[in-house]
Parts: sequence; C-alpha cells; structure tokens
Amino acid sequence: MRVRTIDWVDDAVELVDQTLLPDKLVMLRIHTVAELVEAIQRLAVRGAPALGVAGALGVVLADGDTGQIAALRAARPTAVNLAWGVDRAAARLAEGRESVLAAALKVRDDDVAACRAMGERGADLLEGDRLRIMTVCNTGGLAAVERGTALGVVQTLHERGRLAEVLALETRPLLQGARLTTWELGRMGAPHRLIADSAGPYLLARGEVDAVLIGADRIAANGDTANKIGSYALALGAERAGVPFVVVAPESTIDPGTPSGDHIEIEDRGDEEIVNVRGVRVAPEGTRALNPAFDVTPHDLISAIVTEQRVIRP
Amino acid sequence: MRVRTIDWVDDAVELVDQTLLPDKLVMLRIHTVAELVEAIQRLAVRGAPALGVAGALGVVLADGDTGQIAALRAARPTAVNLAWGVDRAAARLAEGRESVLAAALKVRDDDVAACRAMGERGADLLEGDRLRIMTVCNTGGLAAVERGTALGVVQTLHERGRLAEVLALETRPLLQGARLTTWELGRMGAPHRLIADSAGPYLLARGEVDAVLIGADRIAANGDTANKIGSYALALGAERAGVPFVVVAPESTIDPGTPSGDHIEIEDRGDEEIVNVRGVRVAPEGTRALNPAFDVTPHDLISAIVTEQRVIRP
Repeated sequence: MRVRTIDWVDDAVELVDQTLLPDKLVMLRIHTVAELVEAIQRLAVRGAPALGVAGALGVVLADGDTGQIAALRAARPTAVNLAWGVDRAAARLAEGRESVLAAALKVRDDDVAACRAMGERGADLLEGDRLRIMTVCNTGGLAAVERGTALGVVQTLHERGRLAEVLALETRPLLQGARLTTWELGRMGAPHRLIADSAGPYLLARGEVDAVLIGADRIAANGDTANKIGSYALALGAERAGVPFVVVAPESTIDPGTPSGDHIEIEDRGDEEIVNVRGVRVAPEGTRALNPAFDVTPHDLISAIVTEQRVIRP
Repeated sequence: MRVRTIDWVDDAVELVDQTLLPDKLVMLRIHTVAELVEAIQRLAVRGAPALGVAGALGVVLADGDTGQIAALRAARPTAVNLAWGVDRAAARLAEGRESVLAAALKVRDDDVAACRAMGERGADLLEGDRLRIMTVCNTGGLAAVERGTALGVVQTLHERGRLAEVLALETRPLLQGARLTTWELGRMGAPHRLIADSAGPYLLARGEVDAVLIGADRIAANGDTANKIGSYALALGAERAGVPFVVVAPESTIDPGTPSGDHIEIEDRGDEEIVNVRGVRVAPEGTRALNPAFDVTPHDLISAIVTEQRVIRP
C-alpha cells in the first residue's frame, strides 16, 4: 500500500496520525485550522518538509482569516518550513481560494520531486557499496509527502543495492526512530537495528558506521543546523571517528534570515514527555525536566548539506 | 530512613531490588549464589562498587564451592569490581568460613569509607560555589553500600551548600537516571532536572553545566574508562565546551591488567531492553537492536580520575 503522509483529498487535509504508529495506521481528515494546529502540536504530523506542506494546505482551510493563518504559522517555532509553507500559499490570498489552493498543491508536488532529487544526489555523494548508515529521528516518507530527506537517501541506496544496514537511534523522548523509522525501513525491506540514542557516538568510535545522515529543521545562513535533539552528539562522534556527517534537507529549510545557530529558537516541550514513555511513568512523582526538542550542530562539524539543487560544504 | 543498598544481615545478603524503584522500596534476602547471580544479571543490584561487595559476600554464600564462585565472578563481564570482590574473599577460602566472611565484611566497610573519601576529594577538586553538575546512570548510594561515587561527590557538594542543580540523564535503556538518581537526589533534597540522554552534549554546548561527573565500571592502565553507555558522548561534549569531565571511582575499579580501553569487554544486553520501555513495546514486532551497555571514554578526554586515595590526571 502506498500512503501519502499528507495530502489534499476532497476539500480537506488528510494525514497519517503518526502518534499511533507503529501500532495502527490511521488517516485523519482535517477541515479546520484549529484541528490542524492541534495535530501539529501533538506531533500527529511532524517532520520539516511535511510541516511545510501542512502550512500551505492549512492556508486553504483558513479561507482568508489572517488570525488563523498567524496561529498556524506559529504552531511550532523551530522548523522554518512551517512558516515558509504558510507564506508560499498566503502570498496568493489576494487572488482567491483557487489560486491559494494551486500554490499549496505546488508546495506538495515540489516536495515529492525534491525528496526524489535529494535521494539521488545524496546516494551519488556517498562512496562505497555496502554502506552502514546511522540516523536519528524520522526523516522518511512520514516526515515529508512520500520519500523523505535523509531516509530518502537511504531508500535510494537500498534501491541501488548499496545499503548494508541502518543503525537507527530510538530518539527519546518521542521515539520517532523506534516507532517510525523502523516501521518505514521494515516496509522498504532494508536491514536495520535500533539503538539507544546514547550509543550513537560510541558505535561511531567502534567503526560500525560509514556515514551519518540527518535531516534538518532550520539551516542558518552560515550552515549551522537545527535538527532533532541528539544530532549534535552524533556530529561530535562522527568528527572524532572521521566519518562523514551529512545533512539532507530541501532548499526551503535554509533560512537566510537567520545568520547563525545562536539565532535559532529551540522549542522546549516541557516535563511530561521526559517523565513518561508512551504513557508509562519512568521517574518519581514531581520530577522536573529540561526538554529541548532540537539542538544546533555548528557548521564546522558538517561534511555536506544535500538539497534538491546542490551540495553545500559549509 | 537510612537504607544500605547491600549488606550482610542474619547470615544472608540483603539488598534493595533496584528494578522496582522508584515505585517500591523492597529488600531482598538472598541465601544462595544462584539467587545472587540472578539478581546481578537482572540488575536488581548494579553499580560497580555494589557489585564488588556482592561478589565478596557471594563467596560466603558459596561455602567453598569453586564452581559457584566462578559463575558468580562471570555474572557480568564489564565491571571489574565484581571479579575483584570475589577474589578478595576467595583468597581466604583456605582459612575457613569465618575468615572469608571477615574479608567480605571488610570489602563492605572499605566501600563505605572509600565513598566518603571520594566525595570529599571530588568536592575539593571542583571550583565554584553554585555548581551545575551533569551526570549519567546512577552512581549514588544505590550503586555502592551508602554514598556512592560521582553522586557521592554531588552529595558532599550539597552538604557544603555548593550545589546549584544536577542535570541527570535518564539513561536508556534501563533508565537508572530517571528511576534511581532522581529518587536519591529527591531524598537528599538536592535540586535536579531530568533530561533525555541525547540532550547532554547540547546542554553542555549551551553553557548550562559546570562539570560532568561520572562513575566507572573499569579503568584501564592508561586511563581509558568503561562506564555506562552515553558517557563517551558527554566526554566529547565536555571537551568541546571546555567543561571538566571527571571520573569518580574507587581504586578497585582500576585494572592494571587491562592496558587500554580496546581490551575491555563490552557487554551487549540484547534486543528486549531496547524495543521495550518498562514493559511497553516501542518498536514494531521483530525489530532487532544493538545494545552495548557500556562505552569507553579515551583517557585524553578525561580531566581527572578521583579515587579514595588520589587524583589522577590521565
């Protein structure tokens, strides 16, 4: 079964409820901006490219209501793609609903094409025939419309017969690696093993990885990259091990208005995600947490940034 | 209530079942080596110093049976203290049970004194009055008989009024940080927040930590240190941030027979701990895992090793 993570079907946004994976594959139909903002904030839809499409399609649902559009644009602060997608569609508001819809559908279609191009370019960039890839969070079709960014490169490598194995970080607190990346790799028939997040740098040191591939939520003008918490630790481990550390993201993730990583707002998602794991309490009552959802990898630790148009070496 | 993690009471080993914390504080009474090996392997008792005491007291239970003593000595491979404790007591086998017991009780008493000395020495070593400490796993009283190693230093800092906050890594897969370290810090009234393991290096980069304190399971002759998985990532983060990275461990953790970290056997604990969290499945059925329980931090990343006798700068 081919499922699009997010799409426009019969005058509504349809999207996979990713909070229920891998146990259940449930599609949500969303008719209002309020429903969409709620879906974004509880991470029913997540992943920078998918958030860009959600933002664009959400403007169609807003039907010209600028208050709703502003709320949608601010639903999550770190991924620039959400605001970018909103702005792409909102730029056509004066031309009427059909024009807004056409712009939003173009964001969707461009994402499909961009992910395919990133997959090809990333696979071309990497050397070797039996590649062992390490990745964090989920950057596959579930983070985009169809094929994804870093995991799109993995898919292309697998289709070319060049993938030996993926080591997927489970990605606490919300376990996108354990729940989503393993699910996608299983569906594509790609060999993989799951690891604790903290094991990533050590397995790099032990020589078990040929390249680290990650996505991005925002890339500053100087190449500093915000991505899921844990990315920076992998970058440090890759540098020490002499392993390439490659960011895969569409051009829309590059934010020329942000000069460096110091200017990127990092969302803190509060205590509950840390003191609970899938509804089970793991810490004593009253335990407080610090929960940055993203980190910033300085550009000097990044070997290459692969977009649908080019390879950047920061 | 003052509870010893492990002790000899009425001709049996008594120990806290740490798998039930923080929900329940249950003492186990153990009368046979088979029960003790089972308790060690399922981590009812864990922590390098506590394993040393368990090894020594277990020899009393073995009552001269060399097969049982060998099984106990090999119950877990990475922490050298277990074998060291067994050997300390077993050296007195020819002198009879009372002599073995006396040797085992001395291992216990020496641990209490050593932890107190490490706490003082570590607190003396660190500079500053409002210290923000980061730590991984559990190295408190639950990892020893009473006060612990790295968390023993934290306790001494807190008693001296010099502790601002502890940032405790939750420590997947078995969540010793979330379950045990928070519980101990709560009991001592020390301010603390819990973080995802992968956030450690980033929070170091963000300037939120004054020192990283960890324990050790085995220290090679050259200073390379095996400790809970995630320690190496913190060492990389501390180096880049210019933050002291300090190992706190008794002299018995130093293994002169192991020339470097390359010679330390790292236990892999299998799939189940990774694909489940406290009994809740987090990955699709059939997902395989790679689960090194420890990693090795090269000596060049270690600022100091604090023992009950000295400060070593590798």
